[in-house]
Amino acid sequence: MRERILMGVARGGIKTKEDTLVLVFKEALTYSLLTTQNHLKSGSVRLCEENYKKNNKLKAIVVISGNANALTGRDYEDAKFLVKELSRLIGCREEETLIFTTGVIGKPLPLNSLRESLKVALKNLKEIDLKRASEVISTTDRFPKFFEYKGKFNLLTFAKGAGMIMPHMATMLCFTFTDAKVKNLREIHRKVNEETFNSISVDNCQSTNDCFLLATFEEVEVEEEEFERVLRQSSLKVAKDIVRDGEGATKLIEVLVEGARSKVKARELSKAVASSILLKTALFGNDPNWGRVLSALGSTEFSIPKDFKLYFGDLLVYHLRPVADEKKLREYLEKNEEVKIRVVLNEGNFSWRYYTCDLTYDYVKLNSEYHT
Amino acid sequence: MRERILMGVARGGIKTKEDTLVLVFKEALTYSLLTTQNHLKSGSVRLCEENYKKNNKLKAIVVISGNANALTGRDYEDAKFLVKELSRLIGCREEETLIFTTGVIGKPLPLNSLRESLKVALKNLKEIDLKRASEVISTTDRFPKFFEYKGKFNLLTFAKGAGMIMPHMATMLCFTFTDAKVKNLREIHRKVNEETFNSISVDNCQSTNDCFLLATFEEVEVEEEEFERVLRQSSLKVAKDIVRDGEGATKLIEVLVEGARSKVKARELSKAVASSILLKTALFGNDPNWGRVLSALGSTEFSIPKDFKLYFGDLLVYHLRPVADEKKLREYLEKNEEVKIRVVLNEGNFSWRYYTCDLTYDYVKLNSEYHT
Repeated sequence: MRERILMGVARGGIKTKEDTLVLVFKEALTYSLLTTQNHLKSGSVRLCEENYKKNNKLKAIVVISGNANALTGRDYEDAKFLVKELSRLIGCREEETLIFTTGVIGKPLPLNSLRESLKVALKNLKEIDLKRASEVISTTDRFPKFFEYKGKFNLLTFAKGAGMIMPHMATMLCFTFTDAKVKNLREIHRKVNEETFNSISVDNCQSTNDCFLLATFEEVEVEEEEFERVLRQSSLKVAKDIVRDGEGATKLIEVLVEGARSKVKARELSKAVASSILLKTALFGNDPNWGRVLSALGSTEFSIPKDFKLYFGDLLVYHLRPVADEKKLREYLEKNEEVKIRVVLNEGNFSWRYYTCDLTYDYVKLNSEYHT
Repeated sequence: MRERILMGVARGGIKTKEDTLVLVFKEALTYSLLTTQNHLKSGSVRLCEENYKKNNKLKAIVVISGNANALTGRDYEDAKFLVKELSRLIGCREEETLIFTTGVIGKPLPLNSLRESLKVALKNLKEIDLKRASEVISTTDRFPKFFEYKGKFNLLTFAKGAGMIMPHMATMLCFTFTDAKVKNLREIHRKVNEETFNSISVDNCQSTNDCFLLATFEEVEVEEEEFERVLRQSSLKVAKDIVRDGEGATKLIEVLVEGARSKVKARELSKAVASSILLKTALFGNDPNWGRVLSALGSTEFSIPKDFKLYFGDLLVYHLRPVADEKKLREYLEKNEEVKIRVVLNEGNFSWRYYTCDLTYDYVKLNSEYHT
C-alpha cells in the first residue's frame, strides 16, 4: 500500500528546517475526518470541514508545521489559497485536497514562501516514510509518533502532538491510511477516537487545530471487528505516546474506573481523576497522596457507592477506610514510570480508561519562559 | 455584636500550635449553611448538613485545623462524638452545635486530645478576635483572612483557604456573623456565594470539606439589597484573598466576560478562561499569550460570535484579527500584579467575573515535594 502514498517535504519559511509535508495519493481515497470541538477553529480546519461535507474523496493533503493558521483574521482565506494552489499543481478538484496546520496562533502564514514550498515538495515525491513524516510535522515533540500494521490488510499511521500546546502551539494531528474496505468507517472512527485521543489529557486544554484523518483505498474486505481492533491498537499507541511526550512529563498515568453503572459515569469519573492537577503534581513527587484521587472522584455529578475500592497497581489503598501501607505505596510510585490507578465501583459492568501524565517543573518552565 | 460571640482556642494535638477554635454564642443564631458539592464529603460536613436539616438554630461551633476528618472510615462517628461532647459541656442540644474540620484527608482525628482541647477552649472564652480566629483555623495560608462591617447593622467574617488543597489538605472555610434581620437569608447567601466563592479557582479542584456559614442574631431590620451588598463585599474580599494566597501565586487574575446572551454563558466562558492552566502558566512568565485566552474561550459548549473583543486592561488585543501591540501587552503584564482580562461578546447584557491566580514553580514545589 505504501507505494501508492507519495510524500514530498520542503521548507516553507516558518521553521529553519522542513515545515511543509505534501502527500499525494495515486488513487483517490475515501475518508472520515474528525476535528476539534473548539468554537474558535483554525481556518484550515474550517476549510477541511467544508470540503469533507462536499465529498469524501481525497487526492492530496498538505500539512504545515510551526504556524496554526488560527485567529489571524485571514486564516480561512489563506487555507483556501494554498488548497487551490496544490489542487492546481496536482490537477485535482479543490474539494479533494485538505490542509492541516499546527503551531503558533495569531500569526499570518507566509503565503509566498509556502506556495514555493508546495512546488518543491511536489518535485521530490517519494514513497511515504512514516517516521520522517512525523518528524516534519512535529512542533515541540521529543520523538516521532507512528504505527504500522501488516496483516490481511494494511494500516499506516503518523502523528504529532506533545501535550496540548507549547506556547501558542496547537496541537494534535493524526493521519491513518489503510486499504481495508469497511462499511461503517465513520462509526468505527468515532468510537475508537473516543476511547483513545478523546481519553487523554495533558493539561485539560483544547486546541483550535486538532484533526484525526482516517482514509482508505477500500480494497481488502475485512471483518469490522478486526479493523476496529487494529485501528484501536494504532490510535492507542499514538495517544499514549502523546501523553508520554507531554510537556515536562516523567510518568504515564492510567486511570481505570470499572464496575460502573454506565459508560458515561465510568468515563466522567476517570476523566475527573486524570484531570486533577493536584494529583498530577503529587505523582511527580512520588507522594502517595490517594486522598487526591478520592476528592477528584467525588467532584462530578455522579454519586459514589460506599463499597468502592481504590487500587494503585495491585495495592488496595482504600476500601471503606484507608487500608494503604503508605511505605509500599510510595515504593510503587518510585518504581513505576507507568502508574496504574484503578477504582472499582461494584455497581455495574461498565468501565473506561483515561490517560494522563504528571505535572512537573518543566511544564511550568516550558509554558512560562517562552518569549514571543 | 462582638461581645455576644465568645471565642476560645486550644491545642488539640494535631498541630504543634493551637488547632482548636470554639465559638459560643450568648443567644442562639439563625443560620444558613452552604457546603461542598463533593460526593465524598468529610464526616463533619455530613453531620453539619444533618443538623442543619433538623433545625437552624446555632449555639456553638468548633473548628479543627490540620485534619480534614474525611475518608477515615470513622469520620462521621468522630464528628458526632465531638459535637455531643461540646453540646454537653455547654448545655445545649446536639443539633445546635456544628463542627468544621480542615486539613489532612484519611487520618483519624485524635479524639482524646481533642476532647481535652474542647474543655480548655471553653475555660478561656473571650470576645471574638477575627484575625486570631482566622490564624487558628489556617492550614497553609500565608496571611489571615477577615472582614468587618459596621453600619446600620454589623457583619463579621473570618475564613481560611489557600488555593484548593495543600498536600492532603482540604480547604475553604468561611464564617460570617451578623445582626441583620433578613427574610430571604438563604436565597441571598446562595446568590452571593455563586458570585464570589463559587467564582474563584486556584487549580479547579474541589474539596471534601468546604463550608460557608452565615449566621445572624436577627435584630436589626435592614433593606435586603443593602445586606446583599455588604455580604457581597465581605465575601468578595475574602474570596480574592484566597486566590491571592493561592499556592505559589504571584498574580491575581480577573476574567470578565460581558455582553453575553445569558448569565450561564458569561459564567461558563469566564470559568473556562480562568481554568486554563496554559494561560495561568503563561501569565506567570508575563508572556503576552492571548491565543490561550481564545482557545479556552472556544472550548465550551457555547459558540462565540464573530464580532467579540478581547482586552487586557484597557488594551484591545483581538477584534476580528490580532490588534495587539505585543510589546505593550508584555509591559502591561510586567507592571500589574492584578491582571484584568475582558471579553466583550456584543450579543446581550449578561456578564460574569471569575478570579484565579497564576501557576508557578512554587505551586509544583508545594504540591509535589511534600512527604507524608
